[in-house]
Amino acid sequence: MEAKVGVIMGSQSDLPVMRGATEMLEKFNIPYEVEIVSAHRTPEKMLAYGKEAEKKGLKVIIAGAGGAAHLPGMVAATSTLPVIGVPIKSSNSIDGWDSVLSILQMPNGVPVATVALNASKNAGLLAIQVLATADVSLMKALYNYKEELKEQVAKMNKDLDK
Amino acid sequence: MEAKVGVIMGSQSDLPVMRGATEMLEKFNIPYEVEIVSAHRTPEKMLAYGKEAEKKGLKVIIAGAGGAAHLPGMVAATSTLPVIGVPIKSSNSIDGWDSVLSILQMPNGVPVATVALNASKNAGLLAIQVLATADVSLMKALYNYKEELKEQVAKMNKDLDK
Amino acid sequence: MEAKVGVIMGSQSDLPVMRGATEMLEKFNIPYEVEIVSAHRTPEKMLAYGKEAEKKGLKVIIAGAGGAAHLPGMVAATSTLPVIGVPIKSSNSIDGWDSVLSILQMPNGVPVATVALNASKNAGLLAIQVLATADVSLMKALYNYKEELKEQVAKMNKDLDK
Amino acid sequence: MEAKVGVIMGSQSDLPVMRGATEMLEKFNIPYEVEIVSAHRTPEKMLAYGKEAEKKGLKVIIAGAGGAAHLPGMVAATSTLPVIGVPIKSSNSIDGWDSVLSILQMPNGVPVATVALNASKNAGLLAIQVLATADVSLMKALYNYKEELKEQVAKMNKDLDK
Amino acid sequence: MEAKVGVIMGSQSDLPVMRGATEMLEKFNIPYEVEIVSAHRTPEKMLAYGKEAEKKGLKVIIAGAGGAAHLPGMVAATSTLPVIGVPIKSSNSIDGWDSVLSILQMPNGVPVATVALNASKNAGLLAIQVLATADVSLMKALYNYKEELKEQVAKMNKDLDK
Amino acid sequence: MEAKVGVIMGSQSDLPVMRGATEMLEKFNIPYEVEIVSAHRTPEKMLAYGKEAEKKGLKVIIAGAGGAAHLPGMVAATSTLPVIGVPIKSSNSIDGWDSVLSILQMPNGVPVATVALNASKNAGLLAIQVLATADVSLMKALYNYKEELKEQVAKMNKDLDK
Amino acid sequence: MEAKVGVIMGSQSDLPVMRGATEMLEKFNIPYEVEIVSAHRTPEKMLAYGKEAEKKGLKVIIAGAGGAAHLPGMVAATSTLPVIGVPIKSSNSIDGWDSVLSILQMPNGVPVATVALNASKNAGLLAIQVLATADVSLMKALYNYKEELKEQVAKMNKDLDK
Amino acid sequence: MEAKVGVIMGSQSDLPVMRGATEMLEKFNIPYEVEIVSAHRTPEKMLAYGKEAEKKGLKVIIAGAGGAAHLPGMVAATSTLPVIGVPIKSSNSIDGWDSVLSILQMPNGVPVATVALNASKNAGLLAIQVLATADVSLMKALYNYKEELKEQVAKMNKDLDK
Repeated sequence: MEAKVGVIMGSQSDLPVMRGATEMLEKFNIPYEVEIVSAHRTPEKMLAYGKEAEKKGLKVIIAGAGGAAHLPGMVAATSTLPVIGVPIKSSNSIDGWDSVLSILQMPNGVPVATVALNASKNAGLLAIQVLATADVSLMKALYNYKEELKEQVAKMNKDLDK
Repeated sequence: MEAKVGVIMGSQSDLPVMRGATEMLEKFNIPYEVEIVSAHRTPEKMLAYGKEAEKKGLKVIIAGAGGAAHLPGMVAATSTLPVIGVPIKSSNSIDGWDSVLSILQMPNGVPVATVALNASKNAGLLAIQVLATADVSLMKALYNYKEELKEQVAKMNKDLDK
Repeated sequence: MEAKVGVIMGSQSDLPVMRGATEMLEKFNIPYEVEIVSAHRTPEKMLAYGKEAEKKGLKVIIAGAGGAAHLPGMVAATSTLPVIGVPIKSSNSIDGWDSVLSILQMPNGVPVATVALNASKNAGLLAIQVLATADVSLMKALYNYKEELKEQVAKMNKDLDK
Repeated sequence: MEAKVGVIMGSQSDLPVMRGATEMLEKFNIPYEVEIVSAHRTPEKMLAYGKEAEKKGLKVIIAGAGGAAHLPGMVAATSTLPVIGVPIKSSNSIDGWDSVLSILQMPNGVPVATVALNASKNAGLLAIQVLATADVSLMKALYNYKEELKEQVAKMNKDLDK
Repeated sequence: MEAKVGVIMGSQSDLPVMRGATEMLEKFNIPYEVEIVSAHRTPEKMLAYGKEAEKKGLKVIIAGAGGAAHLPGMVAATSTLPVIGVPIKSSNSIDGWDSVLSILQMPNGVPVATVALNASKNAGLLAIQVLATADVSLMKALYNYKEELKEQVAKMNKDLDK
Repeated sequence: MEAKVGVIMGSQSDLPVMRGATEMLEKFNIPYEVEIVSAHRTPEKMLAYGKEAEKKGLKVIIAGAGGAAHLPGMVAATSTLPVIGVPIKSSNSIDGWDSVLSILQMPNGVPVATVALNASKNAGLLAIQVLATADVSLMKALYNYKEELKEQVAKMNKDLDK
Repeated sequence: MEAKVGVIMGSQSDLPVMRGATEMLEKFNIPYEVEIVSAHRTPEKMLAYGKEAEKKGLKVIIAGAGGAAHLPGMVAATSTLPVIGVPIKSSNSIDGWDSVLSILQMPNGVPVATVALNASKNAGLLAIQVLATADVSLMKALYNYKEELKEQVAKMNKDLDK
Repeated sequence: MEAKVGVIMGSQSDLPVMRGATEMLEKFNIPYEVEIVSAHRTPEKMLAYGKEAEKKGLKVIIAGAGGAAHLPGMVAATSTLPVIGVPIKSSNSIDGWDSVLSILQMPNGVPVATVALNASKNAGLLAIQVLATADVSLMKALYNYKEELKEQVAKMNKDLDK
C-alpha cells in the first residue's frame, strides 16, 4: 500500500526516539515510509524529498531532529504538506531548548506543527488526526482511542485501591 | 457556508493576535467561526465545544492562549480533531515561555500542533494545509502561495538594488 | 472518617512523588482520599471531581502533574476550594520548567497555590495550614512541628561537633 | 472589624502591584491590614510580624516581593499561618525569574503558596478561598464569583458578534 | 572589483541590523555583495547561492537571520566556505534565544561561526580577519584597528577627567 | 585561636560542598567556625548569629544554601560584616538557577558577595582576600598562591608533552 | 587622600550605572578612583591595572561590565585584592544573563564577588564592608546605615497610613 | 612543519573535548600546536600567546573553555587572527549556558567565532575552512569531505533497509 505518512530524521541516532511515531502509525494501520534525510549533510536530497512528497502520495510529513534542528522547517519550506516537527534531545543539545526553538519558531508563511520534546508518539497521532479529517473510519478509530485513554486511568485507579 | 475551522481564544484581549489566523483563512476562502472559550472561566463550555466540534462539521481547531495556557491542550483532550495551538505573549506572561511550554509539552495521547509565539498566521496556514490534504484545488492554492513567498523575496532584492 | 483533603494526580507514575503529601497528612491525622484524575485522558471525570469536591466535604485539593501540567489549574477552574499545585519533574519534562510554569502562571480569577518542584510534602503541609485556620488543636500541632524543625537543626549541629 | 488577612510587602514601590490583593479582599468584604515589612531592612520586625500574626487573629498572610524575594519564605518560617507569596517583577528583577524562584522553591517544612508573577489579585482570591473553607456564606460568594467569570466570557462573545 | 564577501539575510527587515557588517567591510575596503536569500521562502535559491559562492570568487559568507534561523546553517551545508552567522533579535523572536540557538548549535561536519546577538559589525570584522590570513596589508590594517580601539578608551578616560 | 570566618549552611546535606571553603581556610591557616544555621527552620537563631557575628570577632561570614536560598541574604540583613554567598545545587534545585538568583539578586542596601554555583573553595579564598586587605603577610601568601596556580598550568603542559 | 577603592568599567556607556558605586563611596567618605579599563580593547592596560592595584594602595576593586563581561574576572586573575563584579545589562546583552554568568561563574582559584544585575550601589557598599573589617569607625557607620534602612521602612509605613 | 593552527584550552580537563579539534586537523593534514593557556591562572602567558601568534606563523587560533569562559575572548583581544571559541560544558558549568554566553556575547571590535557546546570537531573544521580560502587543494579536500557526509547518510539508509 502506498505510504501516506513520510517519517524522516536527520540521523540514524534519532531512530530510537522516532520509533514512537511509526509504532503509533502501525497501531492505526497507516502505511508509512521511513528515511534518513539530513538537512546539513544532504541538503539537495532534502529539497527533493520535500518537493516530491505530495506528488508521490504522502499526505503528512513527520520530521525529527535535534540541536540546530533545521530539517522540519526546511522540508516545510519545500512542501505544501503539513509538516510535524519532533524536537529531539540529542547528545549535542542544550537540554533540548535548541531543538525546540529551532523547530517551533518558524517565520510567517512556513509553519511547522511542533510537538513536545521527544514526543514522536504524539507526532504519529497528530498525523493520524490529519488523515482522519477526510476518513470517517479513521475518525471513529480515534474516538475509540480516546476511550482507551480513559480506560488506562480507570485501570490505574483499580491498581491504587489494591 | 458551514465553518470548517474553529478559531477560539481564552479572552477578548487575544483577538488582535488571533486576527492573523482569520485573515489567512479568508485569503484562502475557508469558512470559519470565532468564539471566546475560556478554559478557566468556562470549563464546561470548553468541554462542550471540544466534544461537538467534529459533529458540527469542523475539521480543524485553532486555539490561542497565554500564560498558563490550558485551552489548546484541554480542547485536544475532548476532541479527535487536530488542534493547532498558538502561544500568546499576553501581559501576564513571563516573556512567552509559560505560554509556549503550557501548549507544547503535552503528554502522550493528546498532541497539540504548536506554532511559534504569536504566530496565528501560521496557525491559519497550517489549518489550510490540513484541509488541503483532501482538497486538490486548495493544495494548488498552496503551491501558488509558495510562489508568492518567492516573489516577495524577488521584490525585496529589487528594492535593495535601488 | 470523611476525607478533608483530596490528593489527585494525572498518572500512576506521579504516585512516588505524591506520597510525600499523603505521608504529611497522615502525620497530622488528616483524613484524605487519593485518586488518579487525568486532565487530558479523563477531562469529564476531572470536571466532575472539581464540581463535587466541596459538596462531598473536601476542604482542600492537592493536584500534582508534570509537563504541560493542566490538572491543578483546570480543577481550580471548576471548584471554589483552594487548590494546591505540585509541579512534577516527569520524564517528559524540560528540566521541570514546563511543569512549574503551566501550574504557576494562572490568569486572574483562578489561582493555584503552587509549591516547589516535586515538593509534595510542602503541599501536604500547606493543606494542613489551611485546615488549621479553623482548628485550634491542629494549629497547636503546627507550632509543635516548627519546634521539630528547630530540633532537627540542633541535632545536626551535635553531629557536626563529633 | 479585626483583620483576617495581613498584606505585607517589602517596599512602598510594591504597593501598586499589591493593590490587586486588597481590592479583591474588599470585593468580598474581608477585613485586612496592610504594612511595609522588609526582610532585608527590618528583619526583626519581620520576625515579630510572623510570630504575632496568628495570635492577633490573622488567618492568612499575603506577602509580595521582588528580586531575591525573601519576605514570603521568611514569614512562612516564623508563622504557622498559610503564607501566600506574590512574585513581583520589580525594576531590579531579571525578567521576574529571580522573584518567582526565590518564593517558589522553598525547602521541605516551610511552604509558600506561590501565585503567578504580579498576580496579587489571585493572592487575594486564594486568601478568600482559604477563609471560605470555614465560612459557608463566603463559599457561596465564591460560587457567585465563578458565575461572574462565566458572564464575562458571555459578554465578550456578544461584543464579538457586533 | 569582484566581491570577496557575500552578505545575505532572510528578509529586508534584517537590513538595518546587517548594515553593521557592510559598514565594517567598507571601512577596510573589502568588496562585497548584499542579497536577500530566504531559507524558508526561497530554498532553491539559497542552495544555489551556497553552491556557487566559492566558484564566483567569494571567500566568506555572512548570513543573518532571526527566530528559527536556518539560513546560516543551511548555507554552510551547501558551501565549503566559512559561514559567519549573525543571530538577529527579530520581532518574532523569544528574546533572541531562538535565533542564537538555531545558528550556534550546528551538528558535527557543518560549523557556523556564530557571533553575538545582532553583532553584525563583528561578523564583518571576522570576515576581514579570515581574509587577512592570506593578505599581509589587511593584517596590518587589523593591527591599526586594534590601536584605534585602544585610543577610544584613552579618549573616554580624557572625557572622564573633565 | 578566635575564629575570623564563620562558615554556615542551611543543612547538614550542604556540608560536602561547603568543605571546599574550610579546606581553603585551613590552607591559609585562618581560624574559622562551622555551624548549621537554617533560615527557614531556625530563623531566630539565624538573626542572633548575624547580630552577634561582628561582636564575637568574626570578620567575614560564608553562607551556603540551595533552592530558595535565603540564608546568605538574611544574614547580610542582620550583620554589617561582608557576607559571601555560595549557591548550592541541592537535590530540590531547578538546575541551580533558584539558588543562584535567590542569593545574587539582593536589593540595594544589603549586598551578598556571590560566588559561582557550588564554588565554596572560591568563597574561602574570597574571605582570605578580605582579611588580607589588613594583613600584609596574608597578602604575601596570596601572591604565592597565584604563583602556585601558574605552576599548575606549567605542570599540565609538561604532562601534555609526554 | 589616597584612593582605597578602584572603580573600573569597560566603557563610558557603563558610567551611569556605575555612578551608584561612587555615590555610595562618597556617602561613607571613602577615597576612590574611577577609570575606563577595557578587557577587550586595552588588555595590557587591564593587566597592568590589576598588577599595580595593591601596590598603589587600593584595598578593593569594583569592576562593572556587560555582555561577555570579562573585566572583573580578568582583573581578579591579576590582582590579589578582592574584586567586586557588577553585571551590567548593556544594550548588547541577552536580558542580562550573559553579564551575570560571565562574571559569576569563575573557576576555582580566582573568585569574583558578584552583586546583582546593575547593582553598583551594593558593590560600593560591599567594598565599604570589606574596608570596615579593619576600621572600627567605618564599622560603626555601617551600623548607622542599617538604622537608616529601618527608618526608611518606618517612614514608608507612615506614608501608608495617610 | 610549522604549525598553522594553535589549539589552546584553559585546563588539562578540557583535553578530552578538545581532541575533536586536533583529530579533524590531522584528518586534513594541517600542522597544529596544542597548549594549556589559562586566562585566569596565567594571564600574562595568555597575552603573550595572543600577541605572538600571528608572528610565529599561526593563521587561526582555536580556544576552548568552560564556565566563565574568558580565554577565547581575551586571546581575540590580543591577536588579529581569527579566534574560534569552543564552549565546554565543564563540571562547574550551569548546563553550559555560562560557557556559551561568555564566549559568544563579545562586544563590537573583538569577535569570537563561536561553535556549538563541546563542538571541537566543528572548530577544527572551521579552522580548515579559513585556511582553505587561500589554499585550492584544501578547498578541494573540503568538497570531498562534503561528499563523505552524504555517503554517511546513504549508508545509514542502507542499514535502515535491513
